[in-house]
Amino acid sequence: MSLPKPLESLIEELGKFPGIGRRSAERMAFDLVAARPERVEALMAALEAMRSDMGVCEECGYFTSEGRCLICTGNRQGDSVLVVEKPLDVVALEKSAGFRGLYHVLGGHLSPLKGVGPEDLRLDQLFRRLKEPEVRELILATSSTVEGDATALYIIKHIARNDLKITRLGRGVPMGGALEFADSGTLRLALEGRRSVER
Amino acid sequence: MSLPKPLESLIEELGKFPGIGRRSAERMAFDLVAARPERVEALMAALEAMRSDMGVCEECGYFTSEGRCLICTGNRQGDSVLVVEKPLDVVALEKSAGFRGLYHVLGGHLSPLKGVGPEDLRLDQLFRRLKEPEVRELILATSSTVEGDATALYIIKHIARNDLKITRLGRGVPMGGALEFADSGTLRLALEGRRSVER
Repeated sequence: MSLPKPLESLIEELGKFPGIGRRSAERMAFDLVAARPERVEALMAALEAMRSDMGVCEECGYFTSEGRCLICTGNRQGDSVLVVEKPLDVVALEKSAGFRGLYHVLGGHLSPLKGVGPEDLRLDQLFRRLKEPEVRELILATSSTVEGDATALYIIKHIARNDLKITRLGRGVPMGGALEFADSGTLRLALEGRRSVER
Repeated sequence: MSLPKPLESLIEELGKFPGIGRRSAERMAFDLVAARPERVEALMAALEAMRSDMGVCEECGYFTSEGRCLICTGNRQGDSVLVVEKPLDVVALEKSAGFRGLYHVLGGHLSPLKGVGPEDLRLDQLFRRLKEPEVRELILATSSTVEGDATALYIIKHIARNDLKITRLGRGVPMGGALEFADSGTLRLALEGRRSVER
């Protein structure tokens, strides 16, 4: 391929995004080379703003460009705290519109193999928040993996309060998911989590 | 959605790329927020380099970061010049590895409706190049559209030399293209362009 170096570098950088292969990165780079200068400048400004202004909420660990995030400062029910691993999990849950309480982002999960211990996660902040008597329920929504389960177990073991209701997200066959395509682990969880039906 | 403004702006800019919908733009932005600062900086540097260094070849109009492009200064056969509309067409043809001559990028096609006249395309430069006696063949590879055909016709009419061989790209059913899915225009071209077979 006879591509000038700046274009080649841009394609390489764009190719680092998830789901963007060589072909897509090329299409994006060529589109940008042919685009109005204002669009390139707007993209660069957005990247610069992201780099300089974006951080994590001092309360819950979700993305924010202020001290506390839009969720923590929003009109939410403070009686339940939902624990997730990553900020993206918050985005997914917010889209489901099924939760009106507050979040707590751990910033990962416990993983002795990768050298991630309790001190590497936002656990102290979580336990501090859970001391507030206003909080009545803790919802554990760590990943449905060995590490996610271990992290949830660690949290359960280290909660001082006895009057705190602790729940985990329901597990089972996803909505619209055909049984034949569900993996055996999911089916096991679905069986364990079966509920009695009214009749 | 409770997204901080810098993230919202970045998603909007990323969503302007072709083939990148809201969902993909979100995934890309979240990936970048979570990425190491070096990656963000590398992307910004690549954009800056593209903006400042990228231009078009003074000879053929293809992308370049120097005065003349990698193709014009490369080891190519100077006896044939292939005319295309856009730099991306050059990329596609280079990938096919079916051509070893030189290119000429017009920068678009004639379109009276959109106010694109001959003076808006790199036609003077083309006619100047075609005066070189070294050039023996002109291959017209403008789009297979009304405007592309009109542009090719305009070029054919304005060529001063009588000894220049003029050809157009073959047209017909694409490789791997099932006949049932080919549109009628393509099939008409395929019939017109039929060739006798040795037997």
